[in-house]
Amino acid sequence: MSLLVVGSVAFDSVETPVDKIDKALGGSATFCSVASSYFSDDVKMSGGVGEDFGEQNIEMLKNHKIDISGLDIVEGEKTFSYGCVYRDDMNVRDTLFTDLNVFEKFDPIIPEDMRGIPYVLLGNIMPSLQLKVLDQMTNLKFSVCDTMNLWINITREDLLKVIKRVNLLVINDSEAKMLADEGNLIKAAKKVMAMGPEYLIIKKGEHGAFLFGEGQIFSAPAFPLETVFDPTGAGDSFAGGFTGHLINASEINFETMKKAVIYGSTLASFCVEKFSTKGIENLSKETIEGRFKEFINLSRVD
Amino acid sequence: MSLLVVGSVAFDSVETPVDKIDKALGGSATFCSVASSYFSDDVKMSGGVGEDFGEQNIEMLKNHKIDISGLDIVEGEKTFSYGCVYRDDMNVRDTLFTDLNVFEKFDPIIPEDMRGIPYVLLGNIMPSLQLKVLDQMTNLKFSVCDTMNLWINITREDLLKVIKRVNLLVINDSEAKMLADEGNLIKAAKKVMAMGPEYLIIKKGEHGAFLFGEGQIFSAPAFPLETVFDPTGAGDSFAGGFTGHLINASEINFETMKKAVIYGSTLASFCVEKFSTKGIENLSKETIEGRFKEFINLSRVD
Repeated sequence: MSLLVVGSVAFDSVETPVDKIDKALGGSATFCSVASSYFSDDVKMSGGVGEDFGEQNIEMLKNHKIDISGLDIVEGEKTFSYGCVYRDDMNVRDTLFTDLNVFEKFDPIIPEDMRGIPYVLLGNIMPSLQLKVLDQMTNLKFSVCDTMNLWINITREDLLKVIKRVNLLVINDSEAKMLADEGNLIKAAKKVMAMGPEYLIIKKGEHGAFLFGEGQIFSAPAFPLETVFDPTGAGDSFAGGFTGHLINASEINFETMKKAVIYGSTLASFCVEKFSTKGIENLSKETIEGRFKEFINLSRVD
Repeated sequence: MSLLVVGSVAFDSVETPVDKIDKALGGSATFCSVASSYFSDDVKMSGGVGEDFGEQNIEMLKNHKIDISGLDIVEGEKTFSYGCVYRDDMNVRDTLFTDLNVFEKFDPIIPEDMRGIPYVLLGNIMPSLQLKVLDQMTNLKFSVCDTMNLWINITREDLLKVIKRVNLLVINDSEAKMLADEGNLIKAAKKVMAMGPEYLIIKKGEHGAFLFGEGQIFSAPAFPLETVFDPTGAGDSFAGGFTGHLINASEINFETMKKAVIYGSTLASFCVEKFSTKGIENLSKETIEGRFKEFINLSRVD
């Protein structure tokens, strides 16, 4: 199935208690596209980068059979750059700098031939841009949207419009509580569901994820990792793996979505094991299936 | 199967953001015994109370067919009293007062006819007392031990001796990290396992529980509750439900322990719905089985 991924493409400079890396490939569209490419051979990525983006990064995306004809390489511009440092427990991230560069004028014009794609994954970008993407799509069957605390704080109205229109929203636990203004996560989930989406996924980091929909709840575990090398991109990898698996399932319902949550968690667990996209760049079907099975066994009671 | 439960018996004065209660029945032995009584018709409770304990509390324990011949009612003494207040998120508890009373001189002398009991649940009390109980048992087949951060801090050496001798240790996530002096929970679990116990359960509150043993990990979800009325006794109810189910299973191994973890979680989820032991006092087999099945379905992927 064809999947259109729209989001940011960035250079990330990341420092963790373990190590640091400078100007490594990142951005929501990047992680989402690479993660979903393991499940779909027709992933189309839309976004904008500067002329400094580099042949190596283009090659990596092409190696994953990602269609980057919707990726604008803007001459005279630089790629969006982001710098952050993770503190000891890896749960707190301090932003060091945000150079929007080409991203400042990013206008998500979806190429004509991609507007009829039935499946869209809206990676984390400004909600007004996500809305603009939705407006252009002519044949949407299922849409997934990721977002972040920043947009809940500064562009809440736009975000609410997006949430009303998408089929599934992916957020983390603190974002869900913030969005619903409710301290109990289950109550917060109900409030967010009332805002419009048919399905809701709440990511809880090292504590797994909740899926809500069809009057049901599914609780997925997290993979018990001894080392989290770099959490950057884990949420995007989750969204990519989830959506990639889901749209290629026999049908889209709560049951197939449960497996998709585990596949999303699988990709996220590989992501955090290395810097940048390195953890999800060279996976085999066997490696993914192996960890998927470990995930299933982790919570299985016979 | 016969189960000996040793621990504290107390009057708890608890204040939560929702409500408050004064001098209600509590204590580790109480919650453990009541919870395990749903799985075993031969639970023997050992502990000490003052002459103020009250007929009503004795009746409640007897109604659960708990043998309280090992419960000393000491004349001229008062029952151990504890007061605390829970803050907004129910994860932080501030102690208001601790009146040890009869508990100050508590010496766990196990009656002769109970020393041959093969299964022991050591509820949370001072580790030196837990050791004294273990020393008296003549035919131990499986022992479970619960503890708390206080003992890790002030009587670490005694606690390590207990941990070395019991088959299974139940602690929460912050205690595991404190005991192992390790920030990553999975690494901490390995370090604690190296201290002696065959099996380890790490309770994570609203995030469920991990079971470690036989080179395996099991991740159990928590029940998605919209209201936590009073968390007091949840951990003890978990330990009681877990141990009660386990010792009555066909055999004791990792597989039967997984189900026992879910039964423990089931009892804990009922416990937090009301003050004191009220949430676990009047359960039917059907109510317990119903929630057990809900728990299983919560993480089931077919």
